[in-house]
Amino acid sequence: MPGNSFGNAFRITTFGESHGTAVGVIIDGVIPGVALSDEDIQVEMNRRKPGQSAVTTPRNESDRVSIVSGIFEGKTTGTPLTVILYNKDANPSAYTNIKDFYRPGHADFTYHQKYGIRDYRGSGRASGRETAGRVAAGAVAKKILAAQGIVITAYTLEAAGIRCESIDTSIIEDNPMRAADPAAAWKMTEKVTELSEKGDSAGGIVECIISGVPAGLGEPVFDKMDADLSKAVMSLGGVKGIEFGAGFSAAKMLGSEHNDWMDRRGFRTNNAGGVLGGITTGQDIVFRIAVKPTSSIEHPQQTVDIHGDETEIITTGRHDPCLTPRIVPVVESMSALVIIDHILRHRAQNSL
Amino acid sequence: MPGNSFGNAFRITTFGESHGTAVGVIIDGVIPGVALSDEDIQVEMNRRKPGQSAVTTPRNESDRVSIVSGIFEGKTTGTPLTVILYNKDANPSAYTNIKDFYRPGHADFTYHQKYGIRDYRGSGRASGRETAGRVAAGAVAKKILAAQGIVITAYTLEAAGIRCESIDTSIIEDNPMRAADPAAAWKMTEKVTELSEKGDSAGGIVECIISGVPAGLGEPVFDKMDADLSKAVMSLGGVKGIEFGAGFSAAKMLGSEHNDWMDRRGFRTNNAGGVLGGITTGQDIVFRIAVKPTSSIEHPQQTVDIHGDETEIITTGRHDPCLTPRIVPVVESMSALVIIDHILRHRAQNSL
Amino acid sequence: MPGNSFGNAFRITTFGESHGTAVGVIIDGVIPGVALSDEDIQVEMNRRKPGQSAVTTPRNESDRVSIVSGIFEGKTTGTPLTVILYNKDANPSAYTNIKDFYRPGHADFTYHQKYGIRDYRGSGRASGRETAGRVAAGAVAKKILAAQGIVITAYTLEAAGIRCESIDTSIIEDNPMRAADPAAAWKMTEKVTELSEKGDSAGGIVECIISGVPAGLGEPVFDKMDADLSKAVMSLGGVKGIEFGAGFSAAKMLGSEHNDWMDRRGFRTNNAGGVLGGITTGQDIVFRIAVKPTSSIEHPQQTVDIHGDETEIITTGRHDPCLTPRIVPVVESMSALVIIDHILRHRAQNSL
Amino acid sequence: MPGNSFGNAFRITTFGESHGTAVGVIIDGVIPGVALSDEDIQVEMNRRKPGQSAVTTPRNESDRVSIVSGIFEGKTTGTPLTVILYNKDANPSAYTNIKDFYRPGHADFTYHQKYGIRDYRGSGRASGRETAGRVAAGAVAKKILAAQGIVITAYTLEAAGIRCESIDTSIIEDNPMRAADPAAAWKMTEKVTELSEKGDSAGGIVECIISGVPAGLGEPVFDKMDADLSKAVMSLGGVKGIEFGAGFSAAKMLGSEHNDWMDRRGFRTNNAGGVLGGITTGQDIVFRIAVKPTSSIEHPQQTVDIHGDETEIITTGRHDPCLTPRIVPVVESMSALVIIDHILRHRAQNSL
Repeated sequence: MPGNSFGNAFRITTFGESHGTAVGVIIDGVIPGVALSDEDIQVEMNRRKPGQSAVTTPRNESDRVSIVSGIFEGKTTGTPLTVILYNKDANPSAYTNIKDFYRPGHADFTYHQKYGIRDYRGSGRASGRETAGRVAAGAVAKKILAAQGIVITAYTLEAAGIRCESIDTSIIEDNPMRAADPAAAWKMTEKVTELSEKGDSAGGIVECIISGVPAGLGEPVFDKMDADLSKAVMSLGGVKGIEFGAGFSAAKMLGSEHNDWMDRRGFRTNNAGGVLGGITTGQDIVFRIAVKPTSSIEHPQQTVDIHGDETEIITTGRHDPCLTPRIVPVVESMSALVIIDHILRHRAQNSL
Repeated sequence: MPGNSFGNAFRITTFGESHGTAVGVIIDGVIPGVALSDEDIQVEMNRRKPGQSAVTTPRNESDRVSIVSGIFEGKTTGTPLTVILYNKDANPSAYTNIKDFYRPGHADFTYHQKYGIRDYRGSGRASGRETAGRVAAGAVAKKILAAQGIVITAYTLEAAGIRCESIDTSIIEDNPMRAADPAAAWKMTEKVTELSEKGDSAGGIVECIISGVPAGLGEPVFDKMDADLSKAVMSLGGVKGIEFGAGFSAAKMLGSEHNDWMDRRGFRTNNAGGVLGGITTGQDIVFRIAVKPTSSIEHPQQTVDIHGDETEIITTGRHDPCLTPRIVPVVESMSALVIIDHILRHRAQNSL
Repeated sequence: MPGNSFGNAFRITTFGESHGTAVGVIIDGVIPGVALSDEDIQVEMNRRKPGQSAVTTPRNESDRVSIVSGIFEGKTTGTPLTVILYNKDANPSAYTNIKDFYRPGHADFTYHQKYGIRDYRGSGRASGRETAGRVAAGAVAKKILAAQGIVITAYTLEAAGIRCESIDTSIIEDNPMRAADPAAAWKMTEKVTELSEKGDSAGGIVECIISGVPAGLGEPVFDKMDADLSKAVMSLGGVKGIEFGAGFSAAKMLGSEHNDWMDRRGFRTNNAGGVLGGITTGQDIVFRIAVKPTSSIEHPQQTVDIHGDETEIITTGRHDPCLTPRIVPVVESMSALVIIDHILRHRAQNSL
Repeated sequence: MPGNSFGNAFRITTFGESHGTAVGVIIDGVIPGVALSDEDIQVEMNRRKPGQSAVTTPRNESDRVSIVSGIFEGKTTGTPLTVILYNKDANPSAYTNIKDFYRPGHADFTYHQKYGIRDYRGSGRASGRETAGRVAAGAVAKKILAAQGIVITAYTLEAAGIRCESIDTSIIEDNPMRAADPAAAWKMTEKVTELSEKGDSAGGIVECIISGVPAGLGEPVFDKMDADLSKAVMSLGGVKGIEFGAGFSAAKMLGSEHNDWMDRRGFRTNNAGGVLGGITTGQDIVFRIAVKPTSSIEHPQQTVDIHGDETEIITTGRHDPCLTPRIVPVVESMSALVIIDHILRHRAQNSL
C-alpha cells in the first residue's frame, strides 16, 4: 500500500534518498538464467548520469552500481536482484540553506505536510536521484526484452519551444539534448544554454516509441497497457502530461479521420498509438510526455519558510536547465518495466 | 494480477459484459456506518445513462442498480459492498453482423489476439457499459468525500473543435454536452448533431477539478497522486491523453514562469495542478483529458475479418456521436476512487 | 488491503452476508477457452450444502448458482467470472434474539469491536455461508486442475475422538461424516448424532491430499506453497490448526528419522508433506487441519450483551453438530485456488 | 506476484543469499518520526545470531546491520527503510561438495526444479540467513508496537521430546534453548548436545504469546488475524505446523467445553487463542508451531545427484542441532510484522 513498489509480476521496489547513504532497487520476479553483469546495468546508468554536458548538471556522481543479490556465476537465479549505489558526492552542507524553506516547484512543502518530517538534503526521496533505481531495473528489463526483439527508444521531441522537424533516432545519443533531429538539437542546446546562463530553465516534450511488442498485451479493464504506461511515466518528477498516438489532437478529429483502418497487411495508420481497448495491436506503441521546466533556478522567487513567513529564495547548486535529456533513459526504463510486466502477466493467464 | 481491480485500501473489482447477464462492482474497504441507499447510487448512474439527449445514444438502458451486500439497516457494514445491474436491453442479434469483423477503432482485434475468444456482443467487456460498475463505486466514494468537503466536478471543455470561453460549473447538467459555457454548449450541440447526422463522430476535451482536498495526499514515489489519477482516467476507453495544471503548455514555459510562488496565504498560482512531487498541495487538483471521436460511425470503413480478408464495414446501431458528456460522470467517479483510496492509505501510515 | 480477496494470478473476491440479498464471488484471471457451465459449479456447491443428513444442519438452502459474467457460448472468456447465489431461505426474525448478545465462540463481539456495526442475522459476513463463493471459485479451479491431472481429496480423518484406522477415499461421499474408513464413519455418525441430541457439538480433524502436482511450484520466501495453503485453510471459520506431512509429530523426531531420502525413483518417504523449502517436490501434498466443535449449541452458556451485562444464552436454530463433513469440500476448494494460483505465478516467471 | 514481499500497509521485501554479497530488507510504510538507530535493530539481530552456545551453530557471523535509507537525523521519515548486512564469513568452497547433490530435507532439489539454476552455496536463498532481513524489519515493528503496549514473547515449549512443565518467561534469554522452564531447559540442552555429538538433530515446539493487542484487529474473510499469522510463521523454513489456543486438542473437545464464555470482565477462558472469526478479542494471542529436526546432520544419508544417480551424503559444516532457540526471535519478528500491518490496515478503514 505504500507507494515505493511498481509492477506486478516483474516488481521493483526502490529505496534511498539523494544524500542518504545509498539508493537502489530490488527487482522481484526476474526470469532465471539470464546472463547479467554490473556492466549491463552501468551502461544504462551512465546515460542518466548528470554532468555529461553543458545542459546537464555538472555534479560528478560516480554512480557505480553493484548487484548484491540474485546473481550466481553471472546469471540471474530468479531470486530478488538487488542493485545498490552508494552516494559518494554528497555535500549536505550545501543544502542547509534550504532546510527551513519551501522551494517553489519542489516537493518540500508537500513532504512536510505529509510526514511532518523531511530529509531536506537535495530533495531527499523526491530527488531525481531516486530514478537511479528505476534505471537499474529498467536495464535488466531492456536486456530481456531486447532478446525478444522489443526495442524502446525515447528522445527529446521539443525543448525550449524548439521542435524536431524530422526524426532520426541514430543521432539521439550524439547530442546533449538527446534530440532526434540534428538541426533542432543544435538550436535547443544553444537556447537552453542561454537560459541556463540567465539562471532560468526550459521545459520540453519527450517522445517514446516501443517497437516489436506482440499484439495481445495489456489487461482489461484497469490495467490497460496505456493506463499502466501513463502511471509509470507520470510517476516521474517533472512530467505533467502524457498522450498516445494522435493524443490531444484527437480531440479535434472526426471518427472517420481517427479510426485506424486495417488491410491484410495490418493497420494502415496508427492514430491509436499501438493500443486498442488497452491491449497492444502489434504496432509501435507511441506516446509523448510534457516535461516542465526545471524547478531549481537561480532567479529570486517568492516563497515562505516552514513557519509560514514570506521570504525570497534563490536555488543555487547544480541543476539541469532542461530535464528532457536526462529523463529520456528513465522513460525508456519505466516503459521497459511496464512491457515486461505485461508479458509475464499475459503468459500467466494465457499460456496453458 | 489480472486487471479488473482498482485501488488499494478502497478497492473495487468490476465485472460483466455489455450483453451478458449483468454488470456490476464489488467495493472492498468501505468505511462502516455510512448511510447509503440504492438511490444514492442510482443518481450517479442516471448521469452516465445513454439516451439522455440527441447527442447521446438512444439506447434505453434502465440501469436499475441493486446493492446486494455490505449494507445493513441502511448503513454500510465495512464488508464488501456489491452493486449489480442486470442487462435488460440486450439485443445480441443486432451484433451478429460484427461477429466475424474487426471494427476500426474498437478492441475486437486486440481481445481476439489476447484471449483467442471474444464476446463480440456490443463489445463485450470492452464496452463502455463496463463503466457502470465504476460509477456505482464512484457514487459511494463521492458521498463519503462530500461529507469531508471534497467536491469533484468535470465538464466538457471542448468538443468538435469548439471550446468553452469561460467556465460556469452551475450549467453543466443543464446542457446535453455537459459543457461549462452556455454559448459553447449550444454550438457544440449543433455541431455534434450535424456530424451525427452525417454518420460521423467528434472528439473533445474534458476538464476535471477536485476541490477541498487536504495537502499531503499521495504516495511517493510510484503512487503519486497525479500518476494514480492518470492511470485511473487513462483506463477509460477513448481517453488518449491527460495533463495536469499547465500540462503540455509547460513544455514551452520557463522555470521562472511555471513555478508556483507562495505567500502567507498559500500558493499564488496553480501551474502544477495541485500536486507537487506527487503529493497534494491543498489547492484544486486540475487535469484535462483528450477524448477521441467515437469509433462507431456509419461511414463505410476498410477493415479485415477474423480470417484476415479485407472487407468494408459500417457500424450501425446506437452510439454516442461524442463521448465527452457521458464520460464526465465516469471521470468524476474514477477521480473519487483515487482520492478516497489515498485518504485511507495516508491515514494508515500517518495517524498514529 | 481489505481482506475479501484471495490469490494473485487467479484471484477471487467473495461478497455477501448470510441473510443479505445474495452471496457470491468474482474470479479474475480465469484461463480463457475453458468449457464451463452453471452445472459444473452446482455439483461442488451441492457438496457443501447443509441438510444432507442428520449430522448436518437441516436448513434448506437451495443454493442455485448462476454465472453472470465471464462466459460466452459456454466457454470462459478470460474476463471476470462472477457467480451469484441469492439467499432464499432467509428468516431474519429467527435471529433477532441474538441481536443484542455476543454468542460464545462466535464473531459477534469481535465484529462489533472492529466496525461498530454488525449484521447480526445468521452471523452476517462471518457465517459459513460466505464459503459458498469460495466453493464456486474452487469448482472452476478444480476443473482446470483436473485437466492437468491434479486431484484434491479431503476427508474427515477424526471426529468426536474417533479416528479412521485406514483410508479408503472411494467411500468419502457415501457416508454423512465424509470419513474415509467405513467402520469409523459409522461410529462417528452415531457419536455425533448422540451429541447433537444432547445439544452439544464435536470437533475433528480433516486431512487433505493433493496429488499430481508437478515439482517446482511455490514462491520463496514468503509465499511458500505450505505457507499459502496454511493461510488459505486457516482463513476458514472453525479451523484452529494445520500441519504438513509428519506435522507436530516432527517435533519429537530426529533429523535422521525425519529427512526424506531419495533414490532414482524419487523420494522414498514423505515426512515433509510434499513441500521442501516452500516448493513442491512432486509428491502428494498432505496436510491435516484441526476443526473446533461447532460454536452454536443448545447448552445454556454464560455471556454478555452489547451493554456488557451478563446473561445466559442458548443458541437455537439449525446448526451442524460437527463441521468436518461440510468443511471437506471447502478445504478442497481453497487448496485448488492455491495450487492454480501458483501454477499461473510459476509460469509467469519461468516459461520464457 | 513473486514471493519475496510480505505485508500490505507495513510491507517488507527481503533479499540476498547465504553466501552472496549481502542480505537485507526494505520496509515500506514505516510510520514517520520514530526514533530509530542501527543499534535498535542490532539487538534483535544478535538474538538470532548463530554461535551463541553449544546448541547453536558456531559460525561467526558478525551480522552488523546498517540502515542505508529512510532515516534522517535519527528518525524515520516515512520513506523506505533499508537495512543491509554484508556477508563476511562466507566460505563458498566449503559447499562445493554439495554442488551436485540434493541434500535430504533441504530445498536443493526443489529450487533446481523450479528455476533450473540454483545458488548452492549454503542453501543460497533458502538459507536460514534470509531471516536476518525479517528480524531487522521485526525489530522496527516491535519498537513501534512496544510503544503501544504490545509485547510479543516466544520460547521453546518443547525440544527433543522434553517439554516445559511451567512457563517463566523471565528466564528465556538465560538458557541456550530459550526454554521457559529452567529444569526443562537443562534437560533439553543436555539431550540436544548429546544428539549433536552423535551427528543427529532434534525437533521441537515453539509457543508465542502476543499481549496487549486491542480487540478488533484482523480482516474478514481471507486476511483473518490467525490466517495471516499462520502464513507468516509457516513461511519459515523448518516449521511444519501451527495451532491457535486449544489447537489440535480442540478436535477432541465438545462445543460446551471449547466455547469461551464471557462475563462483565471479559472472556473467562481463551481456548480460541485470542481470535474469533479472524478478529482479535483483546486477549492474548497464543499459538504454537511444530519445528522439524534440523535437516543438516552428519549421519550418512541416501540421496541422488543432479543427474539422478544414487549416492550417499554426509552434511558436514556448522549447523544448529535444534532450530527452536534461533527460530524464537524470528517468530516474534514475523508476528510483529503481522500485528503492525493489521493495525495500519484497520485504521485505514475504521478511523474516519
